[in-house]
Amino acid sequence: MRMQALVLTDHGPELIDNLPTPIPGPGEALLAPRLVGICGTDLALVAGYKGGYRGVLGHEYVAEVVAAPGYPEWVGCRVVGEINTTCGVCDSCRAGHVTHCQTRRVLGIRDWDGVFAEYFLSPVANLHRLPDEISDAEAVFTEPLAAAYAVLREMPKSSGDRIAILGDGRLGLLIALVLRAEGYDPLLIGRHQNKLDIANAAGIQTTTHVEAARRFDVLIEATGLPHILPEVIDMAAPRATIILKSTGIERTQIDASIIVVNELRLIGSRCGPFAEAIVALAAGKIDPKPLISSRFPLNQAVAALESAAQSGVIKVLLEPNKPSPLQPQML
Amino acid sequence: MRMQALVLTDHGPELIDNLPTPIPGPGEALLAPRLVGICGTDLALVAGYKGGYRGVLGHEYVAEVVAAPGYPEWVGCRVVGEINTTCGVCDSCRAGHVTHCQTRRVLGIRDWDGVFAEYFLSPVANLHRLPDEISDAEAVFTEPLAAAYAVLREMPKSSGDRIAILGDGRLGLLIALVLRAEGYDPLLIGRHQNKLDIANAAGIQTTTHVEAARRFDVLIEATGLPHILPEVIDMAAPRATIILKSTGIERTQIDASIIVVNELRLIGSRCGPFAEAIVALAAGKIDPKPLISSRFPLNQAVAALESAAQSGVIKVLLEPNKPSPLQPQML
Repeated sequence: MRMQALVLTDHGPELIDNLPTPIPGPGEALLAPRLVGICGTDLALVAGYKGGYRGVLGHEYVAEVVAAPGYPEWVGCRVVGEINTTCGVCDSCRAGHVTHCQTRRVLGIRDWDGVFAEYFLSPVANLHRLPDEISDAEAVFTEPLAAAYAVLREMPKSSGDRIAILGDGRLGLLIALVLRAEGYDPLLIGRHQNKLDIANAAGIQTTTHVEAARRFDVLIEATGLPHILPEVIDMAAPRATIILKSTGIERTQIDASIIVVNELRLIGSRCGPFAEAIVALAAGKIDPKPLISSRFPLNQAVAALESAAQSGVIKVLLEPNKPSPLQPQML
Repeated sequence: MRMQALVLTDHGPELIDNLPTPIPGPGEALLAPRLVGICGTDLALVAGYKGGYRGVLGHEYVAEVVAAPGYPEWVGCRVVGEINTTCGVCDSCRAGHVTHCQTRRVLGIRDWDGVFAEYFLSPVANLHRLPDEISDAEAVFTEPLAAAYAVLREMPKSSGDRIAILGDGRLGLLIALVLRAEGYDPLLIGRHQNKLDIANAAGIQTTTHVEAARRFDVLIEATGLPHILPEVIDMAAPRATIILKSTGIERTQIDASIIVVNELRLIGSRCGPFAEAIVALAAGKIDPKPLISSRFPLNQAVAALESAAQSGVIKVLLEPNKPSPLQPQML
């Protein structure tokens, strides 16, 4: 059986029609996407981030389990899924840091074909069943929402009341929604009024400009701008916590003595707790749907990627191709 | 009344004989040092760190209170003292971060004459009375020992068992002694066998060489080497805690994406809790005396500074000048 997928090749992202449909190995499920999301990481991979990845892109999804040899109770379930494979035996896995497995493969990011396809594989262990209260349009945000919930784990117990989120992109907005839903009063600092308006509508303070002298007790960096770290450090009050969410920050020059003298805490934060994100969506605590800018069918995935890279665009989704009326679906 | 003091001038450190003895203002005490210690910060100030400080050097001391207008109960007490002045009204003071007072002056470091003198001033609020169990030679370590105890506050609850301290200088050794006394099993990484021997004698593992592949769950940077941060980051296991103690690290190029991907925690740590250091010394949990390399009288302070800057030398102390037998002390 052949399928269509968006593959990152040496020549960039290409829609390929005749890929073999993958076959689940031991412990794996075959899934059919219901809705998938384009993430900043996908765009970074296309732009050449960390050079290497080649394969089917995509890792944010809600899907239906088509086959799961040995796990029949999963077939037909509507699921979301974690993106890191784990070996269980390396130092990181044994220490409980399973998302840091030393031999991990990552869905659509490292050595594992992703979800911008008609079918894809996942370890059954990575899947989470969805309650009916969560729509597909909400569920597709589970993975980035979990990454936003990871910030909550790192909030200091006594945080002062000056909390800023830098960056009004997909992740910055989700972090703002999470903090607001969990009782914090963050200031979202961004550049795009249409994005800031979404935060305002959820009761979040926003601004496009911060006076040079202003200092914050908690700073959450979600801009993805490569050289922003020194600027973030300058905005930190003594004993501030700086939570770094952007993998896009690379080589950058910092004055580390400021970290010592002002006793700052810099905390890197990546993947987060799916369970907390699912509970928040099911309870209606967070509505991510206003972040959806557009939907494209899978066969328009290249155009969808281009759209997602535009300034002002927030979340772009891909949905399964509709069967053409002229060409009845072949099963 | 005139006194002798070691003053950092535009021409470097100079012993000056005819300085006016300072007069305590409201809330201040006049103190006579019993024993003072030379610290890496003193050497850095002499070398031009942060450019500005001019005045009497020195901030590690055990002293006797000579006068304390309005606080007669303090006169005659043997004391150690915190080094930051606090205003009580700025944002940092109100937030309880008193060592980060925005208008702070710092004994022998910023806008406040230090302790390498026959007399010096301190806010009474900064003084701690010493129990008799603590000798002068132990008490003079209170300030750096408190800075070492600050590390304890930052140790993760679940730290794994791979803890490394980088740097076998004064501060690195004290941190190693503190962690060992508090039930941790750190590895001290250094370059000087005589310094590592002191740690070994206290039951601390040491090494001069770490294999390139080795990773640690907790890394404590106390080398003072300006460009070591990228190397420290490379030694960190996923989710590791890196505690930065050296203000000597300045502009340095780091790959911040590693902090995010490996979810590292970088924590700057400066001054620490005097009370914990005093309790540990009084209980005999920590013996800092093996760190004493030599003692000089105050009138040999320039030579003492030169000695303290030598490789292999650990802690150099200054003690009051002995009255000359040919020239009876004038009171």
